Amino acid sequence: MPKPNLPSLYTCLSPALLHLYDVNDSIVVIIDVLRATSTIATALFNGAECVVPVDSVPRCIELGLKLNGITAGERDGRVAEGLSYGNSPFEYPESFVAGRKLVLTTTNGTKLLHMALAQGKCEIITGAFLNLSAVCDYLLASKKPVILGCAAWKDRVNMEDTLFAGAVVDRIGQEFSINCDSSHMAQTLYRQAKPDLFEFMKINDASHFHRLMNYGLEKDIRHCLSPDLANVLPVFRDEALWKAAGSRQQAAGRR
Amino acid sequence: MPKPNLPSLYTCLSPALLHLYDVNDSIVVIIDVLRATSTIATALFNGAECVVPVDSVPRCIELGLKLNGITAGERDGRVAEGLSYGNSPFEYPESFVAGRKLVLTTTNGTKLLHMALAQGKCEIITGAFLNLSAVCDYLLASKKPVILGCAAWKDRVNMEDTLFAGAVVDRIGQEFSINCDSSHMAQTLYRQAKPDLFEFMKINDASHFHRLMNYGLEKDIRHCLSPDLANVLPVFRDEALWKAAGSRQQAAGRR
Repeated sequence: MPKPNLPSLYTCLSPALLHLYDVNDSIVVIIDVLRATSTIATALFNGAECVVPVDSVPRCIELGLKLNGITAGERDGRVAEGLSYGNSPFEYPESFVAGRKLVLTTTNGTKLLHMALAQGKCEIITGAFLNLSAVCDYLLASKKPVILGCAAWKDRVNMEDTLFAGAVVDRIGQEFSINCDSSHMAQTLYRQAKPDLFEFMKINDASHFHRLMNYGLEKDIRHCLSPDLANVLPVFRDEALWKAAGSRQQAAGRR
Repeated sequence: MPKPNLPSLYTCLSPALLHLYDVNDSIVVIIDVLRATSTIATALFNGAECVVPVDSVPRCIELGLKLNGITAGERDGRVAEGLSYGNSPFEYPESFVAGRKLVLTTTNGTKLLHMALAQGKCEIITGAFLNLSAVCDYLLASKKPVILGCAAWKDRVNMEDTLFAGAVVDRIGQEFSINCDSSHMAQTLYRQAKPDLFEFMKINDASHFHRLMNYGLEKDIRHCLSPDLANVLPVFRDEALWKAAGSRQQAAGRR
């Protein structure tokens, strides 16, 4: 039920629905669980200086040269032609990314991030199961309106991003005013999926799950569905995502 | 999993996502459970000659005069100004509608129907819990690609239309090739909701549920969530929805 004294929370299930929500003065959480926002959390957790999200491969190559950064990205789930690295969290251990800039382009996540920026004056963070607690802690502390923005798959609603939105609603929804069926449906799905997210995705035929399984990426999927393994808060500022000050320490403190 | 030998089935959760689906040569099921497609099924079940869906109040008044029809419709859940009747199935008993034309405009359902028509050469039927079996029987017999089109609420995904899509997937999904997370999520939600749809809508804070409850329309909601009480198949042809030949008899035969 709407609770007038609390900030609002909405779940936007696809970038093609973003225009329905007023992003101004809100925190928009960009969600692309498989795998952009999982990789962003991992790279920052492992010490990358920042992650620069860009919306095209040519721009990725151009900025990679200019910033002396790692060029990375995927199209349709595989390493994009012309780039050096892909979209798997396992490609970015501390030994490789510490102190470096990662320039990243992905099919859906970076697109949604740029759409939100173009739509209004909002604060942008990224979320995935790997940094679920950091995201929830920040949203709770901020007391600002929240839009959980699912990157989806080429604008089609997907299961994994919906489940992550549901996880956030399940964890902190009580502290927000939620007049949004998408949020309640996501929470209901998450509660059912929670005992075994991987199995839920498998038996419910999640499309991107099967796409990645066909590429032999079961290890990636299992990792990306694990809570808090890279529990930092990526915050967008000056064209890049940076680890919020203290967020890794907070994460360590929780364990 | 995709099954290449079977026709495809997709669930489109909002009119704002319809452009993602190829409607050509498909059957598009227009779903607006609370209450347009429930009222359409009821009026045809009770002997209305046809239901003419129109997208504006002025057009409704104009056509009502021209066809000597009943002008009906709602905006934001209430009878629209200038029209004689609203959007409640209970307004259309046999004694009132038998042999008459109903000209109907609603917030979401009629809009989606006209969008689908504009988008390609498709067959259009309407679905609601009240005619769930008639819809499923027809889709099974047709063996054509299906798009379950949720009318939603001003383009925002809603619970009741998603649940109906889930009911269809749950009943006949095995006979289709479904590569669509929205369909699987809808089915999962429906399975959980099935024992008591009304209670599910209530405890999960469905927004339109509460809107109608605030108007004192609990009886309408309970009726609209009841399977097969007006089990006809509304088919769009010549600018109107007509009861498919034999569909009421089939319905009677099922009981």
